[in-house]
Amino acid sequence: MTTFLHPSAQVDAGLLCGHNVVIDAHVRIGTNCQIGNGVVIHSGTQIGDGVRIDDYSVIGKLPMRSRQSAMTKEVELSPCIIEDGCMIGAQTVIYRGARLEEGVMVADLATVREESAIGAFTIIGRGVAVENKVKIGTRCKIETNAYVTALSDIDDDCFIAPEVTFTNDRFLGRTRERFRYHRGVTMLRGARIGANSTILPGITIGEDALVGAGSIVTHDVTARITVFGSPAREVRPVPTEQLLESQ
Amino acid sequence: MTTFLHPSAQVDAGLLCGHNVVIDAHVRIGTNCQIGNGVVIHSGTQIGDGVRIDDYSVIGKLPMRSRQSAMTKEVELSPCIIEDGCMIGAQTVIYRGARLEEGVMVADLATVREESAIGAFTIIGRGVAVENKVKIGTRCKIETNAYVTALSDIDDDCFIAPEVTFTNDRFLGRTRERFRYHRGVTMLRGARIGANSTILPGITIGEDALVGAGSIVTHDVTARITVFGSPAREVRPVPTEQLLESQ
Amino acid sequence: MTTFLHPSAQVDAGLLCGHNVVIDAHVRIGTNCQIGNGVVIHSGTQIGDGVRIDDYSVIGKLPMRSRQSAMTKEVELSPCIIEDGCMIGAQTVIYRGARLEEGVMVADLATVREESAIGAFTIIGRGVAVENKVKIGTRCKIETNAYVTALSDIDDDCFIAPEVTFTNDRFLGRTRERFRYHRGVTMLRGARIGANSTILPGITIGEDALVGAGSIVTHDVTARITVFGSPAREVRPVPTEQLLESQ
Repeated sequence: MTTFLHPSAQVDAGLLCGHNVVIDAHVRIGTNCQIGNGVVIHSGTQIGDGVRIDDYSVIGKLPMRSRQSAMTKEVELSPCIIEDGCMIGAQTVIYRGARLEEGVMVADLATVREESAIGAFTIIGRGVAVENKVKIGTRCKIETNAYVTALSDIDDDCFIAPEVTFTNDRFLGRTRERFRYHRGVTMLRGARIGANSTILPGITIGEDALVGAGSIVTHDVTARITVFGSPAREVRPVPTEQLLESQ
Repeated sequence: MTTFLHPSAQVDAGLLCGHNVVIDAHVRIGTNCQIGNGVVIHSGTQIGDGVRIDDYSVIGKLPMRSRQSAMTKEVELSPCIIEDGCMIGAQTVIYRGARLEEGVMVADLATVREESAIGAFTIIGRGVAVENKVKIGTRCKIETNAYVTALSDIDDDCFIAPEVTFTNDRFLGRTRERFRYHRGVTMLRGARIGANSTILPGITIGEDALVGAGSIVTHDVTARITVFGSPAREVRPVPTEQLLESQ
Repeated sequence: MTTFLHPSAQVDAGLLCGHNVVIDAHVRIGTNCQIGNGVVIHSGTQIGDGVRIDDYSVIGKLPMRSRQSAMTKEVELSPCIIEDGCMIGAQTVIYRGARLEEGVMVADLATVREESAIGAFTIIGRGVAVENKVKIGTRCKIETNAYVTALSDIDDDCFIAPEVTFTNDRFLGRTRERFRYHRGVTMLRGARIGANSTILPGITIGEDALVGAGSIVTHDVTARITVFGSPAREVRPVPTEQLLESQ
């Protein structure tokens, strides 16, 4: 079995390549990369040095547009960019227009949509969905099956536990007005959210604040404060030894 | 690299086809379809005109039967049917015996099981699991990672937010009796469920009713009423401007 | 199209094999197995008799190690072992160092990480993530999209409903101390957890105990007791007819 390598693609030295790989037009792959079986790299994708991509991941996919989608305006997307030292698991989908900075890790079965940017050394966990137009800072950790809705903004050193759910539409798909109010979740530097919590649209989680597991967050959270419950209420300051400045 | 096309398969004009595609016996594909790399279309599947299917999706898969499964009776499944204009993302699994009506969109990594039917122009979000024997109406939107349990019935124009969980077994796998009481969730026309909510077995969400995010719904919900909390309680009528008739 | 079969691999009689399969060095496959299209079986994997593996599953994958990962010590992993009669769905990822005992079923899009062991006839549902160093007993049922965190220990005959979330780090990624306190969830024989519940780190769910749907479990649960709520409180004994001894 063989690899399909488009004549316009450019592959540098040291590539370790599995079976049945598809490398499309104008793709560029840096030195010493490791590409698993059946990986598909769509046209224009730019991959740095020392990148690992595991079996059956799809990189640089073009979005589909539904007649019912909340975001209908077509845009010209820039190519997908995967910087040096990124590690991408099996069966992920990374869209055209996404950018992964140096050393990002994306685990198996995760997706990163168009016009989203992931900061250096951030970990995107297994099965995580990062929607379009999301900005994530450096050294964040977003754990298994968490859902980061469109238009969210996550600063450096944030932590999102497994199965956390973000929302961005307080009209749940009704009224024309809602398009004016679409707002994701904002996490300021070092904010953390516990497992399986739900964050309502437009909420800001303050700097180094902590949301306890299973909470429903309906109001902004003050910096360095712990909240918990449904709806979430303030319970105590974040312990000093857990603050970013103490690490 | 090439496509495997079974001699008994029938493919109409205008097919755009990726590498390593497998098209099995008696498959029929309409005009102007777009089939991504490595897509597998199992035997008998019927695909309409203008359908897009992205990389590595598996269409028409035969179910596996476990010795421990709640539904053990084997049935003869009809072929998988994908009607005109459907869009199917990457790495989805659509089973034999499923039917997608005109213009349905199924996003990446979603699954639709056997004996389920999805109405025209409905959106099945990324990572959604639609179990077997589910009926979903037209123009519904089921968002990322939601779980629609077996035997559920969802009417037209319903909305299910991300990470919502349906249940159908109030005996959690115990007693022989439970098989008589297996009942999914019923959503009447225009009902909506907020992010990460949990709906208990056999519950009916009334017409145009609204379940707030993160609720645990233990009783039926009255038409045009908003409920919220754990367990969910009535909080107010659904605002007039959000009712279906106002759209 | 063809299969890549490494010369050192050993395949017994009766193999039914799809297109584009990759069978790597020193793999062993027993009699009468069924391997779907594009399945990748990494080096050293040992597969018993009568095993079915569906399209695009990846078996025996080597872990990636992130610079930020909580578990940094590299270990020499033993080969992935899939015993007789296992059924594995489409697009799963089973790691090197995982062991599936006789008759285990793993549904589509699920993952089982390294150094985890799944007991005979247990069902791992669609989209479930079983992390590393997890031990699961026999005849358990772990349902759609549940998250079983690292270091968890699940005894025989346990039940975990859809979208349940386990946690193992009560410091949410901060302090050096946390590595000493990493503890998964323990479920004793016959324990059951309802849909979309969240279990805090180090919790033990007692023998035949029951956690109601949507609960946040912050304390250990007594044997044969039902708890419910956020945080979960005792509500009643488990009904006699639902106890394991009554089945």
